[in-house]
Amino acid sequence: METAEPVSPLDRPFGDDRPARLATLDADPAAEAVLAELRAALPADRLLTDPDTIGPYVHDEAEWAEYGTPVAVVRPRTTDEVAAVVRSCARHHVAVVPRGAGTGLSGGANAVDGCLVLSLERMNDIVEIDPGERLAVVQPGVVNDHLRAAAAAQDLWYPPDPASAPWSTIGGNVATNAGGLCCVKYGVTRDYVLALEVVTAAGEIVRVGRRTAKGVVGYDLAGLMVGSEGTLGVITEVTVRLRPLRTTPPRTVVGFFDSLADTGAAVAAVTAAGLQPAVFELIDRHSLRAVNEWRNAGLPENAAALLLAQTDLPEPAATAEAEGILAAFEACGAKDAMISTDAVEADALFEARRMVYPALEQRADAVLTEDVCLPRQKLADMLAEVERIGERHTTFIATVAHAGDGNLHPLIIVDRHDVDARRRAQSAFEEIIDAAIARGGTVTGEHGVGLLKRAGMRREQSPQVLSMQRAIKAALDPLGILNPGKVVG
Amino acid sequence: METAEPVSPLDRPFGDDRPARLATLDADPAAEAVLAELRAALPADRLLTDPDTIGPYVHDEAEWAEYGTPVAVVRPRTTDEVAAVVRSCARHHVAVVPRGAGTGLSGGANAVDGCLVLSLERMNDIVEIDPGERLAVVQPGVVNDHLRAAAAAQDLWYPPDPASAPWSTIGGNVATNAGGLCCVKYGVTRDYVLALEVVTAAGEIVRVGRRTAKGVVGYDLAGLMVGSEGTLGVITEVTVRLRPLRTTPPRTVVGFFDSLADTGAAVAAVTAAGLQPAVFELIDRHSLRAVNEWRNAGLPENAAALLLAQTDLPEPAATAEAEGILAAFEACGAKDAMISTDAVEADALFEARRMVYPALEQRADAVLTEDVCLPRQKLADMLAEVERIGERHTTFIATVAHAGDGNLHPLIIVDRHDVDARRRAQSAFEEIIDAAIARGGTVTGEHGVGLLKRAGMRREQSPQVLSMQRAIKAALDPLGILNPGKVVG
Repeated sequence: METAEPVSPLDRPFGDDRPARLATLDADPAAEAVLAELRAALPADRLLTDPDTIGPYVHDEAEWAEYGTPVAVVRPRTTDEVAAVVRSCARHHVAVVPRGAGTGLSGGANAVDGCLVLSLERMNDIVEIDPGERLAVVQPGVVNDHLRAAAAAQDLWYPPDPASAPWSTIGGNVATNAGGLCCVKYGVTRDYVLALEVVTAAGEIVRVGRRTAKGVVGYDLAGLMVGSEGTLGVITEVTVRLRPLRTTPPRTVVGFFDSLADTGAAVAAVTAAGLQPAVFELIDRHSLRAVNEWRNAGLPENAAALLLAQTDLPEPAATAEAEGILAAFEACGAKDAMISTDAVEADALFEARRMVYPALEQRADAVLTEDVCLPRQKLADMLAEVERIGERHTTFIATVAHAGDGNLHPLIIVDRHDVDARRRAQSAFEEIIDAAIARGGTVTGEHGVGLLKRAGMRREQSPQVLSMQRAIKAALDPLGILNPGKVVG
Repeated sequence: METAEPVSPLDRPFGDDRPARLATLDADPAAEAVLAELRAALPADRLLTDPDTIGPYVHDEAEWAEYGTPVAVVRPRTTDEVAAVVRSCARHHVAVVPRGAGTGLSGGANAVDGCLVLSLERMNDIVEIDPGERLAVVQPGVVNDHLRAAAAAQDLWYPPDPASAPWSTIGGNVATNAGGLCCVKYGVTRDYVLALEVVTAAGEIVRVGRRTAKGVVGYDLAGLMVGSEGTLGVITEVTVRLRPLRTTPPRTVVGFFDSLADTGAAVAAVTAAGLQPAVFELIDRHSLRAVNEWRNAGLPENAAALLLAQTDLPEPAATAEAEGILAAFEACGAKDAMISTDAVEADALFEARRMVYPALEQRADAVLTEDVCLPRQKLADMLAEVERIGERHTTFIATVAHAGDGNLHPLIIVDRHDVDARRRAQSAFEEIIDAAIARGGTVTGEHGVGLLKRAGMRREQSPQVLSMQRAIKAALDPLGILNPGKVVG
């Protein structure tokens, strides 16, 4: 497998989609052989080789993960076509990098030099929604929101709701075990995957998992594929569990806090009271200010953080739970704490949450998204540490968090053209990871390892665990052709 | 590894715990070397070699799974002792068969000839219950009910509730991914396992998983260990997620049905109505009659089946849901359908459910427990097929089911001393498996593959999937010393 030296992330400006270095790679006889086979086997529209057209396929949204130059992008329409692609690549030892919508934040879908990028975007059929079994069968390229809408039309609900839901695909969600706002109560993608059709590293089509509610027949291969970022197989069909659609309008509770310590105490108090909000988010002061600046949102700026919770129990339990959350907030010193019964008002607050990222993007150039997950009780301590890390490295860091899960997204803002600022930001990024590990946390809560968290993963896990990971990779992809260099690479 | 020919299940009476054939095995130099090392390394009370004392450790509750003769039983008290045992066995290529309480129903804990049985029963400390993180850390030998009680004392709840909960251990529950009554709404053991400490096949101590609510750092090794029946590692500590304790008393709905078709229709109607009972059980007429005969319970015997549902929503939603379930039952022709607001009455019905197994054991000798799981809509069809299979083989089969999960436990009653009856029962057992597979079901919903479902697993899964399973086994246990012959053996 030809792999030219990757461009160091620090030696190129972020987001530099410069035309691929195809000229140097065309000479690779293995890649040429694969291209010849695929041209013979697939309809012409499946294959993109023009450097201008493959540009959008070479990396995901991870700002400074390195990426290489593929020999081609293939966009199959059927599982058989995927299998043909992988078989050809296996025959000639050419790397395959699967991708969905490319909304990932860890570089998991980034091309490596000489690879074939396998885009599943055109396999976007909702195959089946079965209300009797409460499940859906979809192709991997189905957009998350499309599945949710189709399920809702049958009074069913697919809970996993990553922020990328309007664009990201179920295949990508499964490959990264995507989370979202609802998972504090309803779990992550893993909790909804019943079965998968997968093309193995040998190009064989297999079905793992089951359509039944329960099952323990052998090792949990479907579970193993979830979060494996395309390194163990290419997901070509997904069977997910659905829930009944929620019908009661949520009650929203909001509270502004003077200090991060009070904020963390409020999160702990809600947990200690046995309350289970369906959404439990945190927006820090830097994020509030950015939203105000961008959209004149009129959010209080003198608070250290805003907590935003929703309860979706049936009434009157929802009101009781909302009152419990409010009491916990107030006991921890919240100001302007209130229960919103006004859907418009509640929507505006969640809109502010959604606006943080674009507001920060307006402010500077590049936003590097962290994704550490902490024991809930370490939330305040970790938030304070993130502030200190930002100060230490003269780097602006705004934080939003899935507070109820202890999942922090410190957003590191950088001028992409300032090499020194980039170096400082990278140091801050790694120090946040170390601070999370030191507090019993994990380096990635829901975005995946990809490329950006490989070093952190090696610091979090013991050599023995890493060697178990590599043993599994070698067992299921002995040639190492599936998304090489990602996760365990 | 010395392995004498196992006793064929058909050539010995069930439950024959005849003294082990230690004499013939003492000559095995590898086993002798292990015993010598362990005698030197461990306190004397850890090791049992007397045939009389090891008798209770040689098999689980699976009536006709074969079992062999171990060279010894070792009952370690610490993870380091477990690691020392596995290292010694790895050095000399001696098989290790881990076990908890031995309540399994698939033969997963059965000894193989020449093995060391590793009983985790003495590692039974509840290490920690952390209400702030809503998690518990326990040693593998902690009994399920003990964990539930300890959690309840802190207003927390560990939902997985296999029928064996008063005796079975968390380690065994994890190793088999145990289910139970609550899992129709609250999920199985897998859904509660956050992290595991595991002794690998090389005798190394590793930690997999995490203490945080979310995490996607590398392959889901903790998930892979769940349900792997001790074939990939020995579980020495378990970190489980807890939920807030439920405080509202449940509402129970009961309905008797004239036909299996009506019963199945009622289950489907409850699902279609978007209702989510926290318990949803089925007891067939044979089971009702057995309970009546044993305890004069006064249950109606002219019904084809009884459905028993519970809702645990906060009031008044619970009453509304109970009324919805009742309406679904009545629309499908239920007789004597009612909502029980009387806890004593409801308890009596669940007591009847619990009495089915002992009542059937009174009736004959051996009860072979099936565990197929079907798409919910196939429930009635499958129940009818089970009746036909029983008739075809002149074999008495009573069925209870976790109806809401489509998980059937046909209980096959056999005279253990009648070789011909045993052969007919075994044929019925395999035909039930085939009927489940033909209907899109799985051969084991919650009991595991062990020994009894190995043939069924090979019929359910494709050769490619089986080869993936074996590749993972070989990757994590290259010498094949961990519970050999189970699951993928």
